[in-house]
Amino acid sequence: MAMKTTVESAMGQPDGVSLRRTLPGYVYTDPAVFGREQEMIFERLWFCAARSAEIGQPGSFRVVPVGRESVLIVRGHDGALRAFLNVCRHRGSRLCAEESGQVRRNLRCGYHAWTYDLDGRLVAAPNLAKMADVDRDAYGLIRVGLREWLGYAWVCVADEPPSFTDTVIADVTGRLGDPAAIGHYRTEELTVGRRVTYQVAANWKLIIENFMECYHCATIHPELTRVLPEFARGYSAQYYVGHGAAFADGAQAFTVTGTGGLGRLPEVAPDQDRRYFAVTVRPQVFLNLVPDHVIVHQLFPHAADQTTVVCDWLFDAAVVEAGQDLAPSVELFDRVNRQDFRACELTQLSMGSRAYRDGGVLVPSEHHIGQFHAWVTLAAQL
Amino acid sequence: MAMKTTVESAMGQPDGVSLRRTLPGYVYTDPAVFGREQEMIFERLWFCAARSAEIGQPGSFRVVPVGRESVLIVRGHDGALRAFLNVCRHRGSRLCAEESGQVRRNLRCGYHAWTYDLDGRLVAAPNLAKMADVDRDAYGLIRVGLREWLGYAWVCVADEPPSFTDTVIADVTGRLGDPAAIGHYRTEELTVGRRVTYQVAANWKLIIENFMECYHCATIHPELTRVLPEFARGYSAQYYVGHGAAFADGAQAFTVTGTGGLGRLPEVAPDQDRRYFAVTVRPQVFLNLVPDHVIVHQLFPHAADQTTVVCDWLFDAAVVEAGQDLAPSVELFDRVNRQDFRACELTQLSMGSRAYRDGGVLVPSEHHIGQFHAWVTLAAQL
Amino acid sequence: MAMKTTVESAMGQPDGVSLRRTLPGYVYTDPAVFGREQEMIFERLWFCAARSAEIGQPGSFRVVPVGRESVLIVRGHDGALRAFLNVCRHRGSRLCAEESGQVRRNLRCGYHAWTYDLDGRLVAAPNLAKMADVDRDAYGLIRVGLREWLGYAWVCVADEPPSFTDTVIADVTGRLGDPAAIGHYRTEELTVGRRVTYQVAANWKLIIENFMECYHCATIHPELTRVLPEFARGYSAQYYVGHGAAFADGAQAFTVTGTGGLGRLPEVAPDQDRRYFAVTVRPQVFLNLVPDHVIVHQLFPHAADQTTVVCDWLFDAAVVEAGQDLAPSVELFDRVNRQDFRACELTQLSMGSRAYRDGGVLVPSEHHIGQFHAWVTLAAQL
Repeated sequence: MAMKTTVESAMGQPDGVSLRRTLPGYVYTDPAVFGREQEMIFERLWFCAARSAEIGQPGSFRVVPVGRESVLIVRGHDGALRAFLNVCRHRGSRLCAEESGQVRRNLRCGYHAWTYDLDGRLVAAPNLAKMADVDRDAYGLIRVGLREWLGYAWVCVADEPPSFTDTVIADVTGRLGDPAAIGHYRTEELTVGRRVTYQVAANWKLIIENFMECYHCATIHPELTRVLPEFARGYSAQYYVGHGAAFADGAQAFTVTGTGGLGRLPEVAPDQDRRYFAVTVRPQVFLNLVPDHVIVHQLFPHAADQTTVVCDWLFDAAVVEAGQDLAPSVELFDRVNRQDFRACELTQLSMGSRAYRDGGVLVPSEHHIGQFHAWVTLAAQL
Repeated sequence: MAMKTTVESAMGQPDGVSLRRTLPGYVYTDPAVFGREQEMIFERLWFCAARSAEIGQPGSFRVVPVGRESVLIVRGHDGALRAFLNVCRHRGSRLCAEESGQVRRNLRCGYHAWTYDLDGRLVAAPNLAKMADVDRDAYGLIRVGLREWLGYAWVCVADEPPSFTDTVIADVTGRLGDPAAIGHYRTEELTVGRRVTYQVAANWKLIIENFMECYHCATIHPELTRVLPEFARGYSAQYYVGHGAAFADGAQAFTVTGTGGLGRLPEVAPDQDRRYFAVTVRPQVFLNLVPDHVIVHQLFPHAADQTTVVCDWLFDAAVVEAGQDLAPSVELFDRVNRQDFRACELTQLSMGSRAYRDGGVLVPSEHHIGQFHAWVTLAAQL
Repeated sequence: MAMKTTVESAMGQPDGVSLRRTLPGYVYTDPAVFGREQEMIFERLWFCAARSAEIGQPGSFRVVPVGRESVLIVRGHDGALRAFLNVCRHRGSRLCAEESGQVRRNLRCGYHAWTYDLDGRLVAAPNLAKMADVDRDAYGLIRVGLREWLGYAWVCVADEPPSFTDTVIADVTGRLGDPAAIGHYRTEELTVGRRVTYQVAANWKLIIENFMECYHCATIHPELTRVLPEFARGYSAQYYVGHGAAFADGAQAFTVTGTGGLGRLPEVAPDQDRRYFAVTVRPQVFLNLVPDHVIVHQLFPHAADQTTVVCDWLFDAAVVEAGQDLAPSVELFDRVNRQDFRACELTQLSMGSRAYRDGGVLVPSEHHIGQFHAWVTLAAQL
């Protein structure tokens, strides 16, 4: 794959100026801005909510916060996943109170026993027989959009979800270049070998901006730059369409020591081998692709300065079943995560300073972050 | 006593529709709405603040939060209770810092020693003799309304309290039908056998709505419906003027096992025996009347989603003094309370959802809650 | 020094009225008022931030919250202190993450390694050589005003700091009368023998008002009034220009027992001996001068109802080095502090009451607090 500087050429460098402006500080601290982002971004776009395999049997469910909503994802008796607002239509009680669970046949509200089938239809309630005028579909659970991709359930709580292809898939293809590239990792067939959940005291946008650039890599990621020496030069792989960062000559694998590794996922292409690809899927997913595993970050923003990040390390099922040692692979990016999130937290602290009233600056290898800023500004109508 | 469906007939069922709207979700979450409720409801109406007997001797006092105020209730040297804003008139220090206590003669501010007699009059202060122009009545403590009823001190911090008879007593009589009915329990002579305080993460209105209906009883109250089988059919005793729910044929008493009990309060009438009466006294009291004891709930709303509930189990003084076992009686409603408050907390969680933007629905046996909603809307000018 | 009642005569006592109004309660609770005070007072005036000697060597630094800003104070290679906003000019990360520390040569941001010399100039950054158009002065750290006085670093984060002489020094001279008086304590040469930090749940103005008057001393300060009997009469030493409160005849020293003491600071004048002088330096410093030590309070307001107070007990270096017992000296004002801050916290609790809607009252010996109220009102444009 050729290295093309599309972002760079698209934006240009006006007047030969190296530095460009970031967003102003208040968009990282103002609860009103965060409220708009919840409404216009997280409650309108596709949101990666749960690993499908964790909702395995008919009647299995998971409850996930999406924007300000609680979303219930349940596997039907037909084997398909469906998603609903997790709110009883009667008096509004949270329908499923636990984060995950298993029902036998129906979903029954714990308050007044209004009962819905796994399609969301109201099928029973005390004295319902005497209320012949109650439309059991109209008072069914409120359905929300659901798509499965890469082994995850993506939901959209908006009345009219945008095209999944034009948003989620377009972000991945736009980064990798070749639409077929992501498929080679067979992410939907992989097994979650490890999950780590991080509570980050920083705005979700700082976490995305951090992931989008590698100008910081030399400073805070010694383990990562040892495996990916080009990252030490500060140019992010996300800067170039189709480019993956090459492993160091001496590195055998994407592990904390650079040794070991777990072979190669069966369909990974030769030009994907010994390379690391990072992909940002707006608004809240990072994909990290290496030959022997895939790492997926899901961001759950809670407040202007609070974000939960759930990170999954996905491996070939056979590798996990065989009990192979996943720790060297997991430890590398777990360290990277902790290094990054601390940097984001230290940055959050300054967002209210008058020094950042008009924002900071982006160096050339960060200019593509300006595209993210433009997108947020437009999407949330800031 | 005849069963009359006054609430039902007053509101009608337009177009034969079974379901009616509740209040919209934001009135349970919006701090501005809660602020209005504090100002227009809890700081204007009579508020049940303390058990009179706990303020036994001259100089005994209790401090109670009423709306956003701290109210001081003190027994005077003449044996009467009086209530004041718990604020020194000089520089505003909280006059009594403890929740309860005993003074010898006067109330003395701990900051600058401004001193008030138990009538609230300013009687001493450093250098006061040199300030001849200071009016000791005008700079006395700010008096607030106080009425004793059912053995409780009810206070009203408004400048012009409403009629106690037309509000508090009218709520009780409106529910029980016969104005003499409440008196048969001689509640003012009973002794607090047990007090439990619950911190509930729910709006006060959800707690009241929950208490007003029994459509949920079959689902969450197995112990209660065993003693009161009609509650399992979902029709609330509060729905009918004068109606008390009959004990199950096999139930000896209002206890967690249905056995035992503590006899009968001496003046309870035959049509009150073996029956449970629930009464909602707006804005923050529930009365529960059974033949051998009385249970009183006081709600103290702190925030849109935080309410403290203090529950007293009141028994005949002789029963308490004899050391009879109160536990089976207390455990029944303590379980009911915990079941109810958990349901309220799960409901609170959905109040911000778009699924509840226009509210939920009331089934016919809940329609009378609509009257409470109308009252709140008017009282708080929502 | 003669006792002159300048404040008193300036304000007069209209109509022979003993009582005057304080500020209304909401100015002590409203977050918007506190926001204005941050902007108009703490971020515009000189703010006593740190003891200079704690930033001893070139490269030593301290980080201090000033209003809503984080200020970095660092000693340069030339031995001079400088202050900067603690914000990297690149992407805004907090430059120094720790409260204090020591760098060797430069200040290096932990995120992307932008590096500043101790004058604040941008001297290095990854790829900076390729960004020839970046002005290393324009992208240096944002400098803030710094003055050293009494051994403290005073900073001002405003673009145009006010005259230090006309504000800080004028407050001290206005209180002590003689401009030379403060110098006799050689405060800049003293050593911090003990530092205690108090978290006070009260508005900063209540803490200042408390310090300005002694009408409360008889009530809450038994140890202090034993040493300074005139304080028991309620007239504050701050009321009179140049007046220091005389020690009790039997008191040997300003200690919790009135015995012991540590001699006399070498240049203390005869009319300063055996006297206590209190000085309020707006907006956030108290000076307490006694013959053998100096006590300095620094207030750090965090929220309308949260203030951190750092209290330093300063002694002659020889006294500290000799290991003399400082405890009797420290314990006296530590007790006074705890007594005062508890009173302030109890007062804060009433600031939202309707009893304080129009404020409380000032007795004659508190009338000078009205001048502080007028100053705050004007300064914060309330």
